[in-house]
Amino acid sequence: GPTRGNVLSGKEFFVLDWIQFADQKQEFNKRPTKIGRRSLSRSISQSSTDSYGSAASYTDSSDDETSPRDKQQKNSKGNGDFCIKNIKQADFGRREIEIAEQEMPALMALRKRAQGEKPLAGAKVVGCTHITAQTAVLMETLTALGAQCRWAACNIYSTQNEVAAALAEGGFSVFAWKGESEDDFWWCIDRCVNLEGWQPNMILDDGGDLTHWIYKKYPNMFKKIKGIVEESVTGVHRLYQLSKAGKLCVPAMNVNDSVTKQKFDNLYCCRESILDGLKRTTDVMFGGKQVMVCGYGEVGKGCCAALKAMGSIVYVTEIDPICALQACMDGFRLVKLNEVIRQVDIVITCTGNKNVVVREYLDRMKNGCIVCNMGHSNTEIDVASLRTPELTWERVRSQVDHVIWPDGKRIVLLAEGRLLNLSCSTVPTFVLSITATTQALALIELYNAPEGRYKQDVYLLPKKMDEYVASLHLPTFDAHLTELSDEQAKYLGLNKNGPFKPNYYR
Amino acid sequence: GPTRGNVLSGKEFFVLDWIQFADQKQEFNKRPTKIGRRSLSRSISQSSTDSYGSAASYTDSSDDETSPRDKQQKNSKGNGDFCIKNIKQADFGRREIEIAEQEMPALMALRKRAQGEKPLAGAKVVGCTHITAQTAVLMETLTALGAQCRWAACNIYSTQNEVAAALAEGGFSVFAWKGESEDDFWWCIDRCVNLEGWQPNMILDDGGDLTHWIYKKYPNMFKKIKGIVEESVTGVHRLYQLSKAGKLCVPAMNVNDSVTKQKFDNLYCCRESILDGLKRTTDVMFGGKQVMVCGYGEVGKGCCAALKAMGSIVYVTEIDPICALQACMDGFRLVKLNEVIRQVDIVITCTGNKNVVVREYLDRMKNGCIVCNMGHSNTEIDVASLRTPELTWERVRSQVDHVIWPDGKRIVLLAEGRLLNLSCSTVPTFVLSITATTQALALIELYNAPEGRYKQDVYLLPKKMDEYVASLHLPTFDAHLTELSDEQAKYLGLNKNGPFKPNYYR
Amino acid sequence: GPTRGNVLSGKEFFVLDWIQFADQKQEFNKRPTKIGRRSLSRSISQSSTDSYGSAASYTDSSDDETSPRDKQQKNSKGNGDFCIKNIKQADFGRREIEIAEQEMPALMALRKRAQGEKPLAGAKVVGCTHITAQTAVLMETLTALGAQCRWAACNIYSTQNEVAAALAEGGFSVFAWKGESEDDFWWCIDRCVNLEGWQPNMILDDGGDLTHWIYKKYPNMFKKIKGIVEESVTGVHRLYQLSKAGKLCVPAMNVNDSVTKQKFDNLYCCRESILDGLKRTTDVMFGGKQVMVCGYGEVGKGCCAALKAMGSIVYVTEIDPICALQACMDGFRLVKLNEVIRQVDIVITCTGNKNVVVREYLDRMKNGCIVCNMGHSNTEIDVASLRTPELTWERVRSQVDHVIWPDGKRIVLLAEGRLLNLSCSTVPTFVLSITATTQALALIELYNAPEGRYKQDVYLLPKKMDEYVASLHLPTFDAHLTELSDEQAKYLGLNKNGPFKPNYYR
Amino acid sequence: GPTRGNVLSGKEFFVLDWIQFADQKQEFNKRPTKIGRRSLSRSISQSSTDSYGSAASYTDSSDDETSPRDKQQKNSKGNGDFCIKNIKQADFGRREIEIAEQEMPALMALRKRAQGEKPLAGAKVVGCTHITAQTAVLMETLTALGAQCRWAACNIYSTQNEVAAALAEGGFSVFAWKGESEDDFWWCIDRCVNLEGWQPNMILDDGGDLTHWIYKKYPNMFKKIKGIVEESVTGVHRLYQLSKAGKLCVPAMNVNDSVTKQKFDNLYCCRESILDGLKRTTDVMFGGKQVMVCGYGEVGKGCCAALKAMGSIVYVTEIDPICALQACMDGFRLVKLNEVIRQVDIVITCTGNKNVVVREYLDRMKNGCIVCNMGHSNTEIDVASLRTPELTWERVRSQVDHVIWPDGKRIVLLAEGRLLNLSCSTVPTFVLSITATTQALALIELYNAPEGRYKQDVYLLPKKMDEYVASLHLPTFDAHLTELSDEQAKYLGLNKNGPFKPNYYR
Repeated sequence: GPTRGNVLSGKEFFVLDWIQFADQKQEFNKRPTKIGRRSLSRSISQSSTDSYGSAASYTDSSDDETSPRDKQQKNSKGNGDFCIKNIKQADFGRREIEIAEQEMPALMALRKRAQGEKPLAGAKVVGCTHITAQTAVLMETLTALGAQCRWAACNIYSTQNEVAAALAEGGFSVFAWKGESEDDFWWCIDRCVNLEGWQPNMILDDGGDLTHWIYKKYPNMFKKIKGIVEESVTGVHRLYQLSKAGKLCVPAMNVNDSVTKQKFDNLYCCRESILDGLKRTTDVMFGGKQVMVCGYGEVGKGCCAALKAMGSIVYVTEIDPICALQACMDGFRLVKLNEVIRQVDIVITCTGNKNVVVREYLDRMKNGCIVCNMGHSNTEIDVASLRTPELTWERVRSQVDHVIWPDGKRIVLLAEGRLLNLSCSTVPTFVLSITATTQALALIELYNAPEGRYKQDVYLLPKKMDEYVASLHLPTFDAHLTELSDEQAKYLGLNKNGPFKPNYYR
Repeated sequence: GPTRGNVLSGKEFFVLDWIQFADQKQEFNKRPTKIGRRSLSRSISQSSTDSYGSAASYTDSSDDETSPRDKQQKNSKGNGDFCIKNIKQADFGRREIEIAEQEMPALMALRKRAQGEKPLAGAKVVGCTHITAQTAVLMETLTALGAQCRWAACNIYSTQNEVAAALAEGGFSVFAWKGESEDDFWWCIDRCVNLEGWQPNMILDDGGDLTHWIYKKYPNMFKKIKGIVEESVTGVHRLYQLSKAGKLCVPAMNVNDSVTKQKFDNLYCCRESILDGLKRTTDVMFGGKQVMVCGYGEVGKGCCAALKAMGSIVYVTEIDPICALQACMDGFRLVKLNEVIRQVDIVITCTGNKNVVVREYLDRMKNGCIVCNMGHSNTEIDVASLRTPELTWERVRSQVDHVIWPDGKRIVLLAEGRLLNLSCSTVPTFVLSITATTQALALIELYNAPEGRYKQDVYLLPKKMDEYVASLHLPTFDAHLTELSDEQAKYLGLNKNGPFKPNYYR
Repeated sequence: GPTRGNVLSGKEFFVLDWIQFADQKQEFNKRPTKIGRRSLSRSISQSSTDSYGSAASYTDSSDDETSPRDKQQKNSKGNGDFCIKNIKQADFGRREIEIAEQEMPALMALRKRAQGEKPLAGAKVVGCTHITAQTAVLMETLTALGAQCRWAACNIYSTQNEVAAALAEGGFSVFAWKGESEDDFWWCIDRCVNLEGWQPNMILDDGGDLTHWIYKKYPNMFKKIKGIVEESVTGVHRLYQLSKAGKLCVPAMNVNDSVTKQKFDNLYCCRESILDGLKRTTDVMFGGKQVMVCGYGEVGKGCCAALKAMGSIVYVTEIDPICALQACMDGFRLVKLNEVIRQVDIVITCTGNKNVVVREYLDRMKNGCIVCNMGHSNTEIDVASLRTPELTWERVRSQVDHVIWPDGKRIVLLAEGRLLNLSCSTVPTFVLSITATTQALALIELYNAPEGRYKQDVYLLPKKMDEYVASLHLPTFDAHLTELSDEQAKYLGLNKNGPFKPNYYR
Repeated sequence: GPTRGNVLSGKEFFVLDWIQFADQKQEFNKRPTKIGRRSLSRSISQSSTDSYGSAASYTDSSDDETSPRDKQQKNSKGNGDFCIKNIKQADFGRREIEIAEQEMPALMALRKRAQGEKPLAGAKVVGCTHITAQTAVLMETLTALGAQCRWAACNIYSTQNEVAAALAEGGFSVFAWKGESEDDFWWCIDRCVNLEGWQPNMILDDGGDLTHWIYKKYPNMFKKIKGIVEESVTGVHRLYQLSKAGKLCVPAMNVNDSVTKQKFDNLYCCRESILDGLKRTTDVMFGGKQVMVCGYGEVGKGCCAALKAMGSIVYVTEIDPICALQACMDGFRLVKLNEVIRQVDIVITCTGNKNVVVREYLDRMKNGCIVCNMGHSNTEIDVASLRTPELTWERVRSQVDHVIWPDGKRIVLLAEGRLLNLSCSTVPTFVLSITATTQALALIELYNAPEGRYKQDVYLLPKKMDEYVASLHLPTFDAHLTELSDEQAKYLGLNKNGPFKPNYYR
């Protein structure tokens, strides 16, 4: 069964020692992740071409058309081991990083702790993630913990150029800019990895492209690599495939499936980003609008709650009777898409499935209906079916197309069916903080684990680590945890320091 | 680890066959339940003495003080194999049962299906549960499915006498009345079990007292018994203890830990019953009140959501950082109890823990503060500490005591610290319907399973069964499930008929 | 135009002086109330026969069938000038009164202030209102302020017998019991008024029956009466009719139309009582239920908000496009009743209109549909149309009837179509506190006003009085008002002590 | 008293005739508006310099620095009677207008009706409002109704240049561009008014600057002017001042104080724009944030509801006890600003007052606190007090400044304390539609009213007109009004066609 894992026992868990929990004998889960869903034949991950974010846009008047690969830039200390858009934007980027630091309390706490001890001393981390202010805070934290870092972008659109500039100015070897070609993309990754006299011993990946590249080009590097930390659904899936095929040659940590990440990236984050994404693109008024939300998982739950609160009338589709019953109890009419498709003002997909909104439904929507995707990948809406001669596409704003039927009916398609929350809204720093903290802790654990603790397999972070990451974020809210008394802990059969819930608790 | 289970594979699951799912090769989980929490030394379960419900009260003018054990009653067909308060109340009870039927659509659907085939033909079920209209619908469904039933109450206060009368009038051997003594309690159980020429082959238990009695008095009966279906936390715990000790001699089904039961009995049910329980006892206005909710698990989440919606200002305490962070994201101040204890108007415990509200806190509450318990057991509030000479107790209404301090300050204590939702509100029939359906399906499965499928162990119902129970309840809401296309099912790697989520999904 | 009033100017307003507002030169509105709606030909007000409340029930085992009129009772001081059910229940009643005092902070504050000065010294108040614990707190406050009181019930069902007993024991001349006949009703009123050597000089009425009786039987009494304070819609309407006809012979205060009363009695109170009333009568689960709310005024808004929060799917009907648009913006589908009548689980009327739910709609409801009235009067549901031979009525619980169609379909009719919130739930003390405080202040004002300030007309309380009543209730919530600085007050053109809003502000 | 008005009776109301209501004998209110608050000595209205909106930004790469006054442009038909940024942007503007049309159903309905009859035939309307897509829909509707229009901007920043281009291309004489100087501002207004051979007979104003200009420069024009329609608080105030001073020489219509405008511009609109404005400027996550909302009028209510729904913990300040009690009942802690100023993450002013957030409070806020203004004018936050040498200002994004204290603490000030919803979010078209429809109807009424119906005074639109505007917007939501039966109308004493509520109903 792919959804469960065996418990490692009798092993120490370094990071929890380091963070001075009183009770170190923590067990650690190894398990395959929950999805075995997606065929993944292409070598560049799909997510690496998702168009990304308004956040990057405001300093990009970008009249300079020269490719960064053709420029020679140096930072103020004369260092030129990077490739970015424009080193002169460093000040703007630094400001963004400082703003982000304020909402990433846990990483800042790790930095403080690192003043005494440097658990990543000697670590050479090669990373491939979105290059944003939040990532910059992570990178600078890793450095404070003792690591050296080289970094590329995991997405050709998502780089905040001014942040990349600030990182380059700060001495990081960053290879990334907004609007890379596919060739640029691999070139940047290669520049990160392939440096004479330097060899990575840790990988931090988001999507699996970096890992893939090393497998393909520099398989020998794995001899020195102590482990891989992978964040994305797609990348985790690739790792499990490698593991199944017996080809995974180092331990890997799946940080995608932790409770906090799931709840925050999905329920709480989407609750806000659905409103933000729709407003920024369409200025639509939510009050009184009829909205179709396809799927009532965490993402759907977040979208529905937000829209209901804003006065929309929300309908839900589901395939799973349990989620369906939850939708009913939460006050949403559970329908099939075809029952209401003619009357709704907005259609939002949150299923993780493909071809949920097909041409047949698009044909029947009313004039002005807004269609967007909050699920994952870009397959939920059958956008390809709209690329036919009888339909006219009109780009009315950035990320907003009108698709016009012969009779004049217009559908408002957002982000060409790609993820609305990545393309048209920003992800709150606070949410990214949780993931980044988990990544940092996973790196520390893998780097410091004694020989033999981790096999060539994919591991899940233990519940207690999730709880620890959560606890680091509570001070942001001036939130005060209650502690169990000895008597209460005994009554409940729990350790006073946790974990407090079974692993499956959500 | 006590929270996980091994997967049975390659076995058929009868009930799903019977209900004609297309794909029978369902796996089935066996696992110990999530709690190892409670010492359980007493022979009568604690829950059997919880005071129970307003529902029973309105036909009980009960001037008749004769013990039912001293009466000779017969129903209209001359049958006297029962012992209840008053057979003349049968008509009132029948009306209550008919009302309940309207909100128990899944059992009614099973009855219809049973017209063709009787999967419980030959089953002799002995049951020990709350005797309410909802249980009556379950019992009459079991009979329709072919079973014979004998029944006792699992709680000395909870019997609806008029429902017991209706069951007796309908031919059931029922032994139960409201206000049994402890001696009565065991006498009734014994009368159920101990009948010449009749021996049970199935047990349906709620709290484990019936199972305990048979173990103690009639251990040989287990030779013919095919299995036990147990609903309660307490009873399930007892079964795991037996299993651990190697003393469980028949298979048992844990119906307590299914997703639907957890969500419905806790989140959705408590969302309504907290309001109902407080209103019926105190008529308090919720708007503007400051409320302390201890614990932010499913019960706490339900209570907080309801009170927030009614205009209360809600504070939360938690020990688990993940639940704590959820409370923050849901808009509640996370505090320690002592920070706000002086200012709150209502204190509600939802922790499952003991001594959460101790005398020290009770001393500091303000005049008129309402204190109640929505967790489980009656240990959350340290009521014992209030039974001291300097405090005066004044019973002001049923289930409502004023505890008066020497300076005149009064605390309004509800249900003497026992469960508010059991004592002072009613559980919606619809919620009970979900549990009752699961019980019926578990009985069918155990009764029909081929020799050897189930060992002498405790089993959890599979996810798919949960999904099936949920699906039977959707028509109540006129809710329409979407079906996966073949292509979509393949894309997701799912069977079109489910299960749709991993077992740990909540 | 009937909705506006002229402003009295240059007059003092006694009560505001007394409560030591710094700026006495308060203007005072006189205006006819907003309704000219109801024909009012019968001499006993309709509201006087509305069946009333669960609150009274729990101490009423009431085996004593003797009419109070036939008993001779005396209180412990030997006083027998009262007529109630049973003086022995006085202790129970006293406890209820004490509980009520805790939620009536404003009256308690007036009592404190009265220690120095007694603005009702010499006042002889005859009252006719519901005899409840809250009224008792008002009566004892009036006494503390210097008044003598004689009291009858304004409704034949609503008297809390034990409270009446406590009042009698405390020396009040109370004439009221639960379950009076119409003859009893007038007899009690007469006993209040008609006492040798005692003549009232103030009237506090609720429904207008007391005023009517004095007009009819003792018109000469008005020579000594300084004014009438009237609370109800019906009673206010009667006063305006008298005024229009030139027959009003003393000043009258309309306390029905103040902002606080409207918002609290309607929006906030109904938000809670709709849930309470439905639960107590039917134990229905709200989650997932489809509910039709007829009317989106304050009452409808309260009902809709509560049910939406509990997970119901709510539809709204409206005649007024503005309220209709509000319903849309608040997230409710605006429909005509016939569009959804077949599918809804609950129908609630909140219109103030007649024949909103007629037989035609009742015929088309689905089996088990619950029908109830939260509007006013008992005309919203055409209950008369259900009293036909082909339909069977079955009383299943107190206040709950099943009306059964020939095909077996049942409608669950609550309170026979009378007001659900009066019949099946309790009104929170806090809400009643606002009204009672306003009544007390109105009595003080009328009693102390210099000759000539008030003509023989109907007066509305000024905005500032509303604000004062509101401010007296803020400490309950530990709520802290901000005060304007001189500079800010000048900028806004407001007096620092209010009024802060125009009279029409809601 | 300034808050009330006298009722005109026995007069016809043209517009309602025209729109074919069955019952014309509508009364019409004249009354001064509710505010006498603001000193208004400057000749250019304050609102005319509020910085405005993201909406305009996306087509403005605006490399062209030439002043529009120095350019000679003609539209495709050779007409050059306009002055705008760039006629070539007309196509972009036309698309924006078309998008707006879809959310302005009522104006489109008026256009249809105008096909038969042109009630503004002969009208020469000079207008001074924000030049946006929504205004363009209004202007084109007025033209369809028969009017000629000349238009200037009422704000130097708010013009959408591409919309101005589309209007110019469509033949309108528009004088406006984004980023006018004050001199430009008056020059544009003058160009609208001062045209040889053309004299306006109607004024549509927003802020009163146009009216002011004509008073000052061309007083004789008023001889031909039939009336003024004014939308803003400020402009209405100016009119009442003129009226008081006996200097108002034509009738004027106050469209600011209609119910629909108030509720929509404030409650419903701010409920959405507070979230939008905060997200676009700061990307802040709302969940768990502590927010101080100053003022609980309609704007404050909208802000609080939205933030509560998103998981923020909201505190409220109020000066008015009634609004304060509403805040309590809605579940917000009512505090004084100084009680929580150190702990909150966001401070929002919604008071309409001045100096609500003064330097003393700003000094005590915590690092990173976001401060913004949703009230009106720019005086609520004492921004001037922050312009001192010891504080550093850093512009981090458009509309976002960091104000930095000597110890490094930063306050995030949005829009320099001007209105957040105007500066940093967009106003939904649907809301503007309501106002625009009311303006159009007011113009029709004044233009067609028989001599003498309207005096030289300020008039309020009658309730029925509000209801009519609301009803025109219901089809957008597929909302179906219920109609009164004759019997019901009689029972309620209402006309079947309305008005349904008294004028003071909100």
